[in-house]
Amino acid sequence: MKACILTIGNEILKGKTVNTNAAEIGRMLYFSGYEVYRGLVVPDVKKEIGQAFRSLIGICDVIVSTGGLGPTFDDMTMSSFADEFKIPLELNEDVYKEIKTRTESRGMEMTKEREKMALVPRGSIILKNDVGTAPGIEYKMGQTRIFLTPGVPSEMRSMLSLIQKEIKLKDSFYFEGSVVILGIYEASLAPYVTKLMEQYGGKVYIKSHPSIKNGKESSLEVEVSAKSDTLENSRRIVGEVLDKIRSIEREIKSH
Amino acid sequence: MKACILTIGNEILKGKTVNTNAAEIGRMLYFSGYEVYRGLVVPDVKKEIGQAFRSLIGICDVIVSTGGLGPTFDDMTMSSFADEFKIPLELNEDVYKEIKTRTESRGMEMTKEREKMALVPRGSIILKNDVGTAPGIEYKMGQTRIFLTPGVPSEMRSMLSLIQKEIKLKDSFYFEGSVVILGIYEASLAPYVTKLMEQYGGKVYIKSHPSIKNGKESSLEVEVSAKSDTLENSRRIVGEVLDKIRSIEREIKSH
Repeated sequence: MKACILTIGNEILKGKTVNTNAAEIGRMLYFSGYEVYRGLVVPDVKKEIGQAFRSLIGICDVIVSTGGLGPTFDDMTMSSFADEFKIPLELNEDVYKEIKTRTESRGMEMTKEREKMALVPRGSIILKNDVGTAPGIEYKMGQTRIFLTPGVPSEMRSMLSLIQKEIKLKDSFYFEGSVVILGIYEASLAPYVTKLMEQYGGKVYIKSHPSIKNGKESSLEVEVSAKSDTLENSRRIVGEVLDKIRSIEREIKSH
Repeated sequence: MKACILTIGNEILKGKTVNTNAAEIGRMLYFSGYEVYRGLVVPDVKKEIGQAFRSLIGICDVIVSTGGLGPTFDDMTMSSFADEFKIPLELNEDVYKEIKTRTESRGMEMTKEREKMALVPRGSIILKNDVGTAPGIEYKMGQTRIFLTPGVPSEMRSMLSLIQKEIKLKDSFYFEGSVVILGIYEASLAPYVTKLMEQYGGKVYIKSHPSIKNGKESSLEVEVSAKSDTLENSRRIVGEVLDKIRSIEREIKSH
């Protein structure tokens, strides 16, 4: 099963903000058993946001978006999504009441900007926002489950476990582990890695990440991940492959 | 002029690594006068990488990719790009010599994995890698300028100023500034921001970023950016708008 992450916001594109949200969502999806297959970042432009959702629906079983749910003019994820698929936006009474209570308890007035945050596409399931005002939603479109979450990291984060409960696959468990190797270059290890992956016929994925210091590889992290029907199996396979990598390390160093 | 960023790597998608490279590239593009219009992250899958380049060519004048240039089996950006557009890969003699010298000076042998890093699409311009082995390239395709850079942050970073020198727009200068406001909620400021942006008719972009602490907005950063034909003009407009925001702050607080 494949999952995609859609990030909405100019501040991410121009690098004012580093996209930690996408990494956190990716982690959640990965540990829920999904292959995270596409990340997309689009600007605060209505047509682009709508088309981004459309383009991902063909690729992924689960889509999680982050950003564009707040009160300002450039928060337009809900309306872009609704317009693209011709779903009417409607005021959610429960959300409206909650925003009103929250607003008035702080001695402020209900503006149309605050009201906007209670407008959701008809048929949405509300994801409660425990730390802020704008709620997230889940929307089911055919076989695709689409989740819209806020861009403020703590607000987005507060919805991750709700989403995970909904989508967690019951027969797909990832496990990963890594070893750090000193004194062997990535290119020297590479042929062994290729051979090892062939031995396991696609069940295991090995990736190496060199650290560079003063223009030289100072260490090499070798990451091994496996996916199987039980967590125990995945864990066992990863352990086995990590042991083999340690043997290869000894072999290379003894030359 | 529009620019896009393509990131290649499973480790980004599944959130093992936060995509700081995209932010750094976005920053460079933004300050070079471009509208950064799309960010795309694809897995280490040959077909996906090739199609990602193809999909961005229609959208952007400049494309910068990061990742997939190293020696391992899953570093396949060069070959994916070349295959997608049917450009032959050829061994670059200068790069080959440099890799060979570097390798042998460390008492290691030239493997086919190391040799792979000297294979570039015919017609490429080499971007020298000052901190590592794999070079980047520039490839011109019609009006689109495409830059392929490594995924190791220090190696990617070493090529940013080279790229900036190539693409910097001479009549498009961005400037941005921000103020931090305490005690005013984003939704309260929102109607003023909308009005202010209308006054400047598209020349100014204002975006607010609330910080949330214990479930409450603790502060609001209001960011103003402008683009014009000289840096002085952009700077002046941003200063003017920031002053107006401070006036609005006083106005709201005096109510």
